Amino acid sequence: MTRYRLVIEYDGAGFAGWQRQDNGPSVQATLEEAVRRFCGEAATLHAAGRTDAGVHALGQVAHLDLTKETDVDTLRDAVNFHAKPAPVAVLSAERVGDDFHARFSATRRRYLYRIVNRRAPLVLDRGRAWFVPVPLDAAAMDAGARQLIGRHDFTSFRASDCQAKSAIKTLDVLTVERDGTEIRVAAEARSFLYNQVRIMVGTLRLVGEGKWRPDDMARALAARDRGAAGPTAPPYGLYFLGADY
Amino acid sequence: MTRYRLVIEYDGAGFAGWQRQDNGPSVQATLEEAVRRFCGEAATLHAAGRTDAGVHALGQVAHLDLTKETDVDTLRDAVNFHAKPAPVAVLSAERVGDDFHARFSATRRRYLYRIVNRRAPLVLDRGRAWFVPVPLDAAAMDAGARQLIGRHDFTSFRASDCQAKSAIKTLDVLTVERDGTEIRVAAEARSFLYNQVRIMVGTLRLVGEGKWRPDDMARALAARDRGAAGPTAPPYGLYFLGADY
Repeated sequence: MTRYRLVIEYDGAGFAGWQRQDNGPSVQATLEEAVRRFCGEAATLHAAGRTDAGVHALGQVAHLDLTKETDVDTLRDAVNFHAKPAPVAVLSAERVGDDFHARFSATRRRYLYRIVNRRAPLVLDRGRAWFVPVPLDAAAMDAGARQLIGRHDFTSFRASDCQAKSAIKTLDVLTVERDGTEIRVAAEARSFLYNQVRIMVGTLRLVGEGKWRPDDMARALAARDRGAAGPTAPPYGLYFLGADY
Repeated sequence: MTRYRLVIEYDGAGFAGWQRQDNGPSVQATLEEAVRRFCGEAATLHAAGRTDAGVHALGQVAHLDLTKETDVDTLRDAVNFHAKPAPVAVLSAERVGDDFHARFSATRRRYLYRIVNRRAPLVLDRGRAWFVPVPLDAAAMDAGARQLIGRHDFTSFRASDCQAKSAIKTLDVLTVERDGTEIRVAAEARSFLYNQVRIMVGTLRLVGEGKWRPDDMARALAARDRGAAGPTAPPYGLYFLGADY
């Protein structure tokens, strides 16, 4: 058995999420099927981030084991060939040791959330960013974001059906920056709770609109109650950027 | 009559080009119809760049005259409302003097051409950039681009059906820069010949692949023969960025 690490890009709109499931095509099943067509092996892919339906990836990391040795560039090109026309591509493939696990070895996961804040509806960014037509104060959002950094119980910022045993997580990075009409929220942590980034972004929008003060974020955190935070931002603004090991 | 200047974004894939025509929806006709639905006036839009089918715009500039005075934010929002669901949006509207002409007053037009240079097929940039899987040397392309800057007879770099009387144009900017797997070609001039940017980019690709040396660009220019230049790059990598007045 040889283990291979893949870096993967996909358009979340084309899939019902990363994970194999019954209600639509998944990134995992699409790539596993492409591997099977290439070499006949029924390999399982394990990913760093099991993204939800609609969430995009620019640098998803996954691994798989193959019985036969294969050239890594051939593996990349063949999987891409057999995955057509699904909106997914393997950017790179490399051999890794058996101790590498894309999900369990990851020490950091990096996400980007894109908001476009202008009056005009989205055109080239349609389905690629959250359209917010009311003015947002990105500096206030950034001040609010800072309240969440560190090791906390993030119960307020996880989906009610999140199945993680503990809601205690360490949030390493949460920043909000404006670049013209675009507002970018960067989030980094060893791991996130279910919908955590999208709930944090949906809540920061309240700060951006001036409905909340920045330190209301700390109050929502302390409440340990999903009802104390804001709505969940839509999936199509979210990008899995990469994982560190 | 009051004259209004609009800045417009559109996805070229949704249109048969800027100009009103018989073989498909045009940006011009879509916006003129939206204006008519808003205020009942049959206004004509004049644009800085009459882009081809498939070419995108991030900052197309156009003007129109309306008999009735209207608030500029209302004009922007109403045209956007009535243009739905076409992939076009008015980013801003402002009142201008009668001497402003979006096409004839423009002193500079700015274009961007996006190439993605990697082995993996495009996913999030599908239809938004030219996919070139063979390695390109961006520095050589930039050296080749420099050969075209200045006032020249650009006969070699215009479509054979270009109807401009003179092929003499002044190219102010033509640069090639690599940012990771993306190569960006910037082009600026008072005006361009038909397909000029796309033919320049298609020819620079030959330099990037090493099939041509950078100074072969000067030789192609001197030939004053369309057959001496390279193929026309596809429209979907091209963006009309803006016009200066």
